[in-house]
Amino acid sequence: MERDHSKISMAVIRRLPKYRRYLEELLNNDIHRISSNELSKMTGFTASQIRQDLNNFGGFGQQGYGYNVEALYEEIGKILGLDREYETVIVGAGNLGQAIVNYTNFEKSGFKMRAMFDVNPKLIGLKIRDIEIKDADELETFVRENNIDIGIICTTKEQAQIVADQLVRGNIRGIWNFAPADLQVPDHVMLENVHLSESLFTLSYLLKSQSEDEER
Amino acid sequence: MERDHSKISMAVIRRLPKYRRYLEELLNNDIHRISSNELSKMTGFTASQIRQDLNNFGGFGQQGYGYNVEALYEEIGKILGLDREYETVIVGAGNLGQAIVNYTNFEKSGFKMRAMFDVNPKLIGLKIRDIEIKDADELETFVRENNIDIGIICTTKEQAQIVADQLVRGNIRGIWNFAPADLQVPDHVMLENVHLSESLFTLSYLLKSQSEDEER
Repeated sequence: MERDHSKISMAVIRRLPKYRRYLEELLNNDIHRISSNELSKMTGFTASQIRQDLNNFGGFGQQGYGYNVEALYEEIGKILGLDREYETVIVGAGNLGQAIVNYTNFEKSGFKMRAMFDVNPKLIGLKIRDIEIKDADELETFVRENNIDIGIICTTKEQAQIVADQLVRGNIRGIWNFAPADLQVPDHVMLENVHLSESLFTLSYLLKSQSEDEER
Repeated sequence: MERDHSKISMAVIRRLPKYRRYLEELLNNDIHRISSNELSKMTGFTASQIRQDLNNFGGFGQQGYGYNVEALYEEIGKILGLDREYETVIVGAGNLGQAIVNYTNFEKSGFKMRAMFDVNPKLIGLKIRDIEIKDADELETFVRENNIDIGIICTTKEQAQIVADQLVRGNIRGIWNFAPADLQVPDHVMLENVHLSESLFTLSYLLKSQSEDEER
């Protein structure tokens, strides 16, 4: 049965990778059924939230049986688009770019790293895990000729928009941006940001709030 | 006037760093007033959302005048706890740990990096930006003796909980976790995760949804 997933809210979508991660762990431990209560204990989401989330995409839960772990894992993977492969390039071969290229779990999930790009002549021509660091001047052509789906931007804030423009001209479909910049891209290009300072500042908020609570 | 910010929702809190980033840019460009409509154009949030968010913490907006950029920037910084300094350590001196220690903007925002820790004997004793890489065995003692506020975990998934336990025993106040693991920490320890695969999988969802739209 083909379901229409287009109405699932982004809030639910952002919880799916977490469910998937736990389900993967269960499969690795040879556990094939799980109740929403057990999933609640693992994930920290309430059981009712979990049932509501998972009801969005089909009747995997059965009263008195729980969820079929494998079926749910597969279905979530499909919803997230992880049942196909993506061609990716990393722009910026500094520490962050190297951390990402060395994170082989992304490859296992179907994100194939085809090349890295940098402006630093000392880096150009080097290989990391068989992945060549190419001259940033070749980015647009490479992306177009190799039908690259996703460009991962690990440059400085100043370079990020220039790189995004090159990726867009090379017909990129999505950009995963780590630079602390809000990029302008056309509507047909999907943009996902990892703004690290936003996460760190949330932590400092939590620390501040907690110390204020203690003072009360 | 001291305001009680404890009732601001986490959804609003997570938008504040973005507002702050734009306000900082405005200040750098010598712009001292801004309307919610202009802020809307910059941030992509609706003007009504912005007014609602900023109303949470005081009457900075004045009809026909707009927001005082500097006052708003300062107030958001206070709410986020950025008007003080935090002592931090980074655990895991691989590419990701090095990327973070080299990201000097965090230091400028008050997050002082005091040491890095690793288990790799080849790395122990080296310095990055004058910050020493120490033996991971010394972590708990260092954290306790130096009143470290925040531990930044850049280890593998397998090491992450062990490191978290050491940080907790050293009386850490907050953990910024980059390992793809859900850590168990006591309630008094604040935990903020950067789960990169959750972000990447959201992007693949967006790409998949878009290609399905095109097929319709």
